[in-house]
Order: sequence, then C-alpha cells, then structure tokens
Amino acid sequence: MAIDTRDDILERDETTNLIASNKVEGTAVYNRSGEKLGTVSHFMVGKRNGRVEYAVMSFGGLFGMGANHHPLPWDVLDYDTDKGGYVVDLDKERLEGAPSFARDQEPTWDRDYGTRIYGYYGLNY
Amino acid sequence: MAIDTRDDILERDETTNLIASNKVEGTAVYNRSGEKLGTVSHFMVGKRNGRVEYAVMSFGGLFGMGANHHPLPWDVLDYDTDKGGYVVDLDKERLEGAPSFARDQEPTWDRDYGTRIYGYYGLNY
Repeated sequence: MAIDTRDDILERDETTNLIASNKVEGTAVYNRSGEKLGTVSHFMVGKRNGRVEYAVMSFGGLFGMGANHHPLPWDVLDYDTDKGGYVVDLDKERLEGAPSFARDQEPTWDRDYGTRIYGYYGLNY
Repeated sequence: MAIDTRDDILERDETTNLIASNKVEGTAVYNRSGEKLGTVSHFMVGKRNGRVEYAVMSFGGLFGMGANHHPLPWDVLDYDTDKGGYVVDLDKERLEGAPSFARDQEPTWDRDYGTRIYGYYGLNY
C-alpha cells in the first residue's frame, strides 16, 4: 500500500474543497455536541461578489409544514471534512429562538433582514 | 406615481443582489456585443471559504452531447442587472478554444485544473 505523499494529500484536499451549487442540498449541519440540527437546503449567493451570505438550513417538519428554514450567516459555519458536513456553535434552544421562515414564505433578502439575521448571531451584516 | 427615494433604490438593489443556489441554473451569459453565449449550469463553491470559484456555463449541444460545459473563473463574470444575466469579455472564437468538458466527464476540481482554467483567462488561481 502506497504511502500518501504531501502532493496526494494536497490534491485530495483541493478536490473535495469545492461543492457544486446544485448538489448543496442535503449537506448535514451539526452542533458542537455532534447532534444533527438539520441539512442545508440551499445557499444564498451574492450575484456580484460571488460570496455565500447564508446557508439556509432546513429540518424535517412534519408534513413539510412550519417555519423550518433557518438562514445561517456563512461565518457561523465550519466545514468538517471528517463529518462531511457543517458544524455550528449553536444548541437546539438557541436554534429554536432563531429567525426562521416557512418554505412558502421566503423573506425579502434585503439589508434589514441581513442586519436582523446576522445580529441574532452576533455578527455585523 | 411615487418617486423612488434613495432608500427604495438601495433596498431594491440589495434585494436582487442575492440568488438562491438552487435557482442559479439558466442564468444567461452574454459577451460584450450582447450575444448570448450560454447559460449558467451551476456554480462551484468553496465548502470552507464560501466563495464561488467557477460558474459552469453550458450551451445547448445537439442531443445534449459534446463538450459543452465551460468552467468560467468567477472574476471574468460581471453581473448586469438590466440584462438579468452575466457578461463576459469573451468572443465566440475565444470560447471555442476554452477548456470545456462533457456533462458525463466532470473534471477533478483540483489545483492543477484551477491553474489551467484560470490561466486560460489570464488569471492566477
């Protein structure tokens, strides 16, 4: 069995560093305790600057109803290669109080909304 | 008819500044002459840094065959609000020589590939 060279490791790392926007859906989101909080539904991306502003996390509401979409500022997410998903420093109680929306009630992604969401997580928009 | 205030304009601008990753598909790509070159198939996004590295542009090959996927470095794209699409400074001849791949032959998105693609467009990866 060949021993990985540094180049192999680098290459593998680079390879898995990108995700296709049409395959984002379903990426798991965990808290620091390893509990699965939900999955990524989609990213909200700046059309001009090409940066992900939010990962919208959903968790399986019964019958697909309820305000079960949580927009998370990109900066609260850490990608964990071993887990193959994102980790946030956020317990379930904190999440329950977090701004959220139902699938059919998408918010206006404007500055006020950004200020509110980022503010909840202690970040500047 | 009310006259737009600066805040109205700002808000509208902010609102339309984000695109959902699951709705990226189909966004038009034009050259400077206004010719439509193709449409965005998907973005390739850094899992950790949350930045779009490529917009993969596709154009309708006959029977959906052929090497009709062109990865474009994010920095060669300008978003044009009036057109509702992206503009690149790239004529069709230049595009024909550009690195591309068939849908069923997705490249390895590693450093070598990035260097090659970005290099073709005169950019550092």
